Amino acid sequence: MPYESEIIEMIRGRSKAGPGFGIELGIGDDSAVLRTDPGTDLLFCSDLSVEGVHFRTEWAGPELIGRKALAVTVSDIAAMGGEPKFALASVALPHGVSMQFVEQLFLGMFDVAESLGLSIVGGDTSASPGGIFIDTSVIGICRRGRAITRSGATPGDVVYVTGDLGGSALGLSLLMQGFRLGVAGDEPADQASRARQAAIRRHLMPAPQVRAGRLIGLEGLATALIDISDGLATDLAHLAQESKCGAVIDASLLPVAQPARDLMSTSHTTDLVDLALTSGEEYELLFCSPPQHSVRIRDMAENLELPITRIGEVTDESGLFIVLDGKTLPMTASGFEHEI
Amino acid sequence: MPYESEIIEMIRGRSKAGPGFGIELGIGDDSAVLRTDPGTDLLFCSDLSVEGVHFRTEWAGPELIGRKALAVTVSDIAAMGGEPKFALASVALPHGVSMQFVEQLFLGMFDVAESLGLSIVGGDTSASPGGIFIDTSVIGICRRGRAITRSGATPGDVVYVTGDLGGSALGLSLLMQGFRLGVAGDEPADQASRARQAAIRRHLMPAPQVRAGRLIGLEGLATALIDISDGLATDLAHLAQESKCGAVIDASLLPVAQPARDLMSTSHTTDLVDLALTSGEEYELLFCSPPQHSVRIRDMAENLELPITRIGEVTDESGLFIVLDGKTLPMTASGFEHEI
Repeated sequence: MPYESEIIEMIRGRSKAGPGFGIELGIGDDSAVLRTDPGTDLLFCSDLSVEGVHFRTEWAGPELIGRKALAVTVSDIAAMGGEPKFALASVALPHGVSMQFVEQLFLGMFDVAESLGLSIVGGDTSASPGGIFIDTSVIGICRRGRAITRSGATPGDVVYVTGDLGGSALGLSLLMQGFRLGVAGDEPADQASRARQAAIRRHLMPAPQVRAGRLIGLEGLATALIDISDGLATDLAHLAQESKCGAVIDASLLPVAQPARDLMSTSHTTDLVDLALTSGEEYELLFCSPPQHSVRIRDMAENLELPITRIGEVTDESGLFIVLDGKTLPMTASGFEHEI
Repeated sequence: MPYESEIIEMIRGRSKAGPGFGIELGIGDDSAVLRTDPGTDLLFCSDLSVEGVHFRTEWAGPELIGRKALAVTVSDIAAMGGEPKFALASVALPHGVSMQFVEQLFLGMFDVAESLGLSIVGGDTSASPGGIFIDTSVIGICRRGRAITRSGATPGDVVYVTGDLGGSALGLSLLMQGFRLGVAGDEPADQASRARQAAIRRHLMPAPQVRAGRLIGLEGLATALIDISDGLATDLAHLAQESKCGAVIDASLLPVAQPARDLMSTSHTTDLVDLALTSGEEYELLFCSPPQHSVRIRDMAENLELPITRIGEVTDESGLFIVLDGKTLPMTASGFEHEI
């Protein structure tokens, strides 16, 4: 493992976290010094990425591991309707890790930071007697009093989801079956291979919906908002529980990812529905919005060139249900209760 | 390992991070929501505590491990002249760790947070295929533009250190020799045992100088400030390097911890000096201040009932030196260059 001082020098050189953009002092002192505008609230969250739990080095190189480690935390800021601003990266590395590996790991984090508009301003490094451990902490901002929690959903609200669902779980399943990410730019010829590559990319390279989250927050378009990390069914249950309400989802409206449609037999629609309900690490946004905002949400989707799909409705009575082939079935964390 | 939901419930119950005190939203959503006053800058830093690298479970129970994991990060805020306000705790735990262990770990973090005036507002938990990994992130505040960096020391400034030095390295050495922390309240009879216990406590239960750091910041008493985590010689070298100056330290002024004086042979003064120069994880503050502030610093020390000792002077020419028995010797990261 390289010396901490070498790593800090490398990061310091790579970091654009100089004065300006709210950064009074970047990497290299005891702490970063930051400045935000009056009238803003701070959002503050962290996420762990642990080798063997959240990622495997035989599935993804260090750059992708670094990208995802930061992306998942940034997604939590999007899920509050905020704008990510500053990040710390704490990384524990086993002996034998090369400086090149460390550089690629941080390259991935810096790339995702730059593309999503935030700055890495510090962190910590350590040896690790186990595998690789990464903890990223992010400060985001939102307009004062305008953070969107999980608890504001109201009966009659429309339930929306950004993007599509199912690709991440499918990609994970393919990785566990032994499929691997192909070389970039080397597009496979047959449709099934292309679909597999798309699903694997989806799992390894999630794109948090930062622009959508920020717009939803700025325009006050949602009553409740969460990102899909555990799966639609589980995360909707979190929303419903915190908002003390229920919801009913229309299975036919679920935006199932194209690779899943391509690879899974169309004769088993219920498999696709289960996949969309349970696929975790999607990092799409799930939110509730009063019906009168529907035009503004459609306009936002067009401006962002991002599908935002109406999938159901918030209900007064508690419990989650899904309408499938005209039948209303209870929804659970593992999908829905299939009829015997 | 307990379920994450159980851990979150436990933390949520224990956390006093409800609305108020700048916390708009505490643990339980995608992110905490925080508010600071206009006119403040934010300080943002993190520190890793890794089993087998930073601590061993046979040396300290989970409560002490938790205390230190947060204390070391808080010390970085003190080292900027700031006030710690909010913390996140990300914890990766091996299988087989009991809920009681987790509770004690967080109890230690909550205790240190409450005693030092900050709130734990979130974090993350994960399984760990290796040992225990803890990463704590802290947001502190300071008056706008008044963070004290490592880079402002000026030739002629007096060099001060809070508290005393040497106890932490001595405690670590005793732990490695097989000595253990005794039962609280069970004071050993002989002086050597008492001294050993004091040194071990010093290593396992560091007390970051939060009140001193905050006062130094509020009153603008220091031109440069750092906490002693790597050892006086190394941390003074960081200050000197960032400030582009040198320093000369008077060995006879070094505040050597009493347990070290008690346990180490007085016929080897140079051993005590080496210990004070190299002992890491002390979490005392090392700072530089113009001579005209000496009365205010003496008054602050009296008010805080904290020794603050003048140990040397900042010099124009680069390089660190120590005056010992009338001789001026070069200081290195491993102490000073002994004469042959």
